[in-house]
Amino acid sequence: MTQARRSNLDPKLTLRVPASAPAPAERMASSGLQTKKRDNHNGHFVQPTNPNVATMQEDVLYHFHLSTSTHDLPAMFGDVKFVCVGGSPTRMEAFTKYMAKELGLDHPGAEYPNICVGTDRYVMFKVGPVLSVSHGIGIPSTSVMLHELIKLLYHARCSDVTVIRIGTSGGIGLEPGSVVITRQAVDASFKPVFEQMVLGKRVVHRTHLDERLAQELMQCGADLREFPTVLGNTMCTSDFYEGQGRLDGALCSYSEKDKQEYLEAAHAAGIRNIEMESSVLAAMCGACGLQVAVVCVTLLNRLEGDQVNSPHEVLVEYQERPQRLVGHFIKKRLAAAGNPRDL
Amino acid sequence: MTQARRSNLDPKLTLRVPASAPAPAERMASSGLQTKKRDNHNGHFVQPTNPNVATMQEDVLYHFHLSTSTHDLPAMFGDVKFVCVGGSPTRMEAFTKYMAKELGLDHPGAEYPNICVGTDRYVMFKVGPVLSVSHGIGIPSTSVMLHELIKLLYHARCSDVTVIRIGTSGGIGLEPGSVVITRQAVDASFKPVFEQMVLGKRVVHRTHLDERLAQELMQCGADLREFPTVLGNTMCTSDFYEGQGRLDGALCSYSEKDKQEYLEAAHAAGIRNIEMESSVLAAMCGACGLQVAVVCVTLLNRLEGDQVNSPHEVLVEYQERPQRLVGHFIKKRLAAAGNPRDL
Repeated sequence: MTQARRSNLDPKLTLRVPASAPAPAERMASSGLQTKKRDNHNGHFVQPTNPNVATMQEDVLYHFHLSTSTHDLPAMFGDVKFVCVGGSPTRMEAFTKYMAKELGLDHPGAEYPNICVGTDRYVMFKVGPVLSVSHGIGIPSTSVMLHELIKLLYHARCSDVTVIRIGTSGGIGLEPGSVVITRQAVDASFKPVFEQMVLGKRVVHRTHLDERLAQELMQCGADLREFPTVLGNTMCTSDFYEGQGRLDGALCSYSEKDKQEYLEAAHAAGIRNIEMESSVLAAMCGACGLQVAVVCVTLLNRLEGDQVNSPHEVLVEYQERPQRLVGHFIKKRLAAAGNPRDL
Repeated sequence: MTQARRSNLDPKLTLRVPASAPAPAERMASSGLQTKKRDNHNGHFVQPTNPNVATMQEDVLYHFHLSTSTHDLPAMFGDVKFVCVGGSPTRMEAFTKYMAKELGLDHPGAEYPNICVGTDRYVMFKVGPVLSVSHGIGIPSTSVMLHELIKLLYHARCSDVTVIRIGTSGGIGLEPGSVVITRQAVDASFKPVFEQMVLGKRVVHRTHLDERLAQELMQCGADLREFPTVLGNTMCTSDFYEGQGRLDGALCSYSEKDKQEYLEAAHAAGIRNIEMESSVLAAMCGACGLQVAVVCVTLLNRLEGDQVNSPHEVLVEYQERPQRLVGHFIKKRLAAAGNPRDL
């Protein structure tokens, strides 16, 4: 059970914390509601924190154009162990084809149909234990997708699922093309929280990412030795222009000096890249007991400019880097487990 | 010029207001920076509030895959008078085909290519003076699109442009299929504001919509007599599930009673529908002197449920209603003007 408390970050904010939480240091719940884990011999099942889901006669996953009454979700998705998400539909399709080759599941004439073909809001592809889903741009678009993804994994009775965002971002003080594995997802004030309005009130969630998983991914970067890979904090914003201190949007209300000071303060706070989805991913997956990580390539160094104007082919190669790193990680995990049920 | 002031809505918020604004009632700027209008005999040119845009050697509209150095934007877009935006790429393509027929610009074999074919983030179509652009789901996705759209219209030297969102929404106390023309775009606390983080600080914009335009659109609904059309407030949220008080998301931290009280309070505040983009559209277009309106169909009555489970063909017909209303409006305006330059 939870109760509302005042936040020490902002007196108007409400934190969701366990009712019994005694010490101030423990007052921020990892996610909101506590996660129930249904253990069995295979491991941890995906479990929404909303108890209503278990009692629904039909669940229409509206933005996926899937439903529990029209689709056999356990048959379609029961073996999923890895969910990779990213903004661009095309990139998520390319990732599926790449993984099919890497896992030896590709064959001449193989097709990877879009499972969400009945809608144009998101795309979804599957090969073996790897599900690939687009989330569009920004926290709200990602949050809609995650609500329905988590329910899908629950209805499909998936267990031991790892979720990884493979994205693009602006870098701070890094050579373009560097890959950042997120240590903490922070907001525009550099705090590791995700703020949300619920029934008209502000609620703050902690943005929990799996530290061991981040280290495992760092090791994959070291194994590959193909591009610089760093562990750093990631700032998650709700706008690409003013929200990230750019001087080249349609609106801009500050000077170059203000911008530079802000980006330098971000760098000093350990922030190495800026994107628009990591915090909600960390908060929601963390809430439902999913292992979660964020792996983004930087397309430019924001200390040196605002415009993404590298040649198209350079950007395309950059965008493949998180895919290669995560592809290596999935192969390593599968090889180590021998059996996906032991993952 | 602007200066920061404390908001009376929240002591931690900063409002952008004209430095000379004397009376408390006038303290909320319509948008942030004041809009400069370059009048000439044809009317009002689209003008970003960011002075840097005028001095940029090249402007890469990254998410549209267009640039001032690779595309002749005045030749491509100079005649645009209406910009219709909506979440779904497919719907925006369908709207273009519909408008081509309605404006007598369709002919056998006519094609309406996606202008943003170099990216999968947004789609854009054009027929005559009507531009149709997708914005994805939520405020951040819409904000990225609007920054680049406003700069595109500026670079193309467009004047007297009207922007209309044709969307879908949840209704409150309305028969499903009703069309709501937005009087005020309000946030989850029912206030007519759009809150944004700029350089780590909260900034609040007023969500200004054009009242005369809304009345003109209401008249179009009355002309058509095809479906119920109402003028009401629209709540703009950053989440489809908890953010709109749904009980069927992966996370839910409140009871059915809490939800019902919230939705009834929203209804009492004049809110007739809930969606996820109106407030940023109102704030940003208002800031840049664009006439702007929001026309959304309601897919369900939220006082009676959460799931969007009407048959697909019913939903498809509902989604055409804002298109038919706005199509009628565009034809009326063009007919009344005789000449698009007088619009």
